[in-house]
Amino acid sequence: MANCVVLLSGGLDSTTVAAFAMSQGFDVHALSFNYGQRHLVELDAARRVARELGLHSHVVCDIDLRVFGGSALTASIDVPHRQSGEAVDFGASKEIPVTYVPARNTIFLSFALALAETISASDIFIGANSIDYSGYPDCRPEYLAAFEAMANLATKASVEKGQKTTIHAPLLTLTKVGIIELGLSLGVDYSITHSCYDPVDFNKPCGSCDSCLIRMGAFESLGMVDPLF
Amino acid sequence: MANCVVLLSGGLDSTTVAAFAMSQGFDVHALSFNYGQRHLVELDAARRVARELGLHSHVVCDIDLRVFGGSALTASIDVPHRQSGEAVDFGASKEIPVTYVPARNTIFLSFALALAETISASDIFIGANSIDYSGYPDCRPEYLAAFEAMANLATKASVEKGQKTTIHAPLLTLTKVGIIELGLSLGVDYSITHSCYDPVDFNKPCGSCDSCLIRMGAFESLGMVDPLF
Repeated sequence: MANCVVLLSGGLDSTTVAAFAMSQGFDVHALSFNYGQRHLVELDAARRVARELGLHSHVVCDIDLRVFGGSALTASIDVPHRQSGEAVDFGASKEIPVTYVPARNTIFLSFALALAETISASDIFIGANSIDYSGYPDCRPEYLAAFEAMANLATKASVEKGQKTTIHAPLLTLTKVGIIELGLSLGVDYSITHSCYDPVDFNKPCGSCDSCLIRMGAFESLGMVDPLF
Repeated sequence: MANCVVLLSGGLDSTTVAAFAMSQGFDVHALSFNYGQRHLVELDAARRVARELGLHSHVVCDIDLRVFGGSALTASIDVPHRQSGEAVDFGASKEIPVTYVPARNTIFLSFALALAETISASDIFIGANSIDYSGYPDCRPEYLAAFEAMANLATKASVEKGQKTTIHAPLLTLTKVGIIELGLSLGVDYSITHSCYDPVDFNKPCGSCDSCLIRMGAFESLGMVDPLF
């Protein structure tokens, strides 16, 4: 089996991606980051997911925060919460959310590239999707293609062995509903995942941040209840 | 004055780059990394350089090593030393040295990109040069151009303000002699720098690794003695 690297946050998207990569016959090496996120509980979810899916390995990397500056996910900026009944735009807005972290996916993918080279993997999976795509610049297909082009000039493996690195973003054109359908078809148990930006108590999703509302709404569209609520 | 980010190892090349960026009118924010390198003493040199040159700020980021795997700069692989009189190829070899660290410049530049965004800088300087170019894939001009193209799709600043990030590698086409000549013309005191891959005692360069031999030879070509010896 070929090795691959999967960026795993323990959320709904990256868990689906890990299951997808396994279904494609890859031996999955998961990579998570402790970057001082408010929702540190997601690292527990990532460990749970790695164990439940039976991934080959799981590395949690500490990322030094000092370069990141202001983001609602790392600093003392408030995560926006919606009032009951308030509409979520589900990505229709053209504004970049305050939860944007500078160059986050570039840093994450760079570490993934280093790990890929050390385990002779030429495939890296990331859970970028169409909801994120509308808001975060580093979830857009043109960004991911540019990263791949750069990666193919960056490594010893690319120069000496002509090894081509592929950045896979299998959720890119899927809606949240489509992602959940894909995961369910692969047998994913979404009760072990964690998506909340701002959990109120240990492991308890707030139910009112955009991340919670988007996944709750998607389960609802499928006639289901999000197993986290 | 415009802010810029300079990747600063405290070695001869990056110190020259920092002085060059200042001479171009930039307010220099230096970024160094503690990535478990054998030559940790280089971080002391970086701090000394930042202080002596009067840089605006200096951040030393801890990098989690677990993704890096085997390299003579981080792991238990021996740094090659030359016998007295043995020729150094000065970059003529096509082989990638054992001192290569997987995706190192990609990770370093990614952190620089994040820092640049937080301080509204659109210029990043790196000391990649023609000696490194022959050995390390991530010092080649085509690699640096690909990183720049990716960076210009990666950030909020690039999307919302159309801010273009430029990766400057002012040493790229210079020989080590040319780099030293540039630095001396800018008043750089090379006695405060540090370049050795494998120092024998605290702050004492070995004098027999490629890094030491290349800089010693360059000073010799200029009819000078490397101030470190």
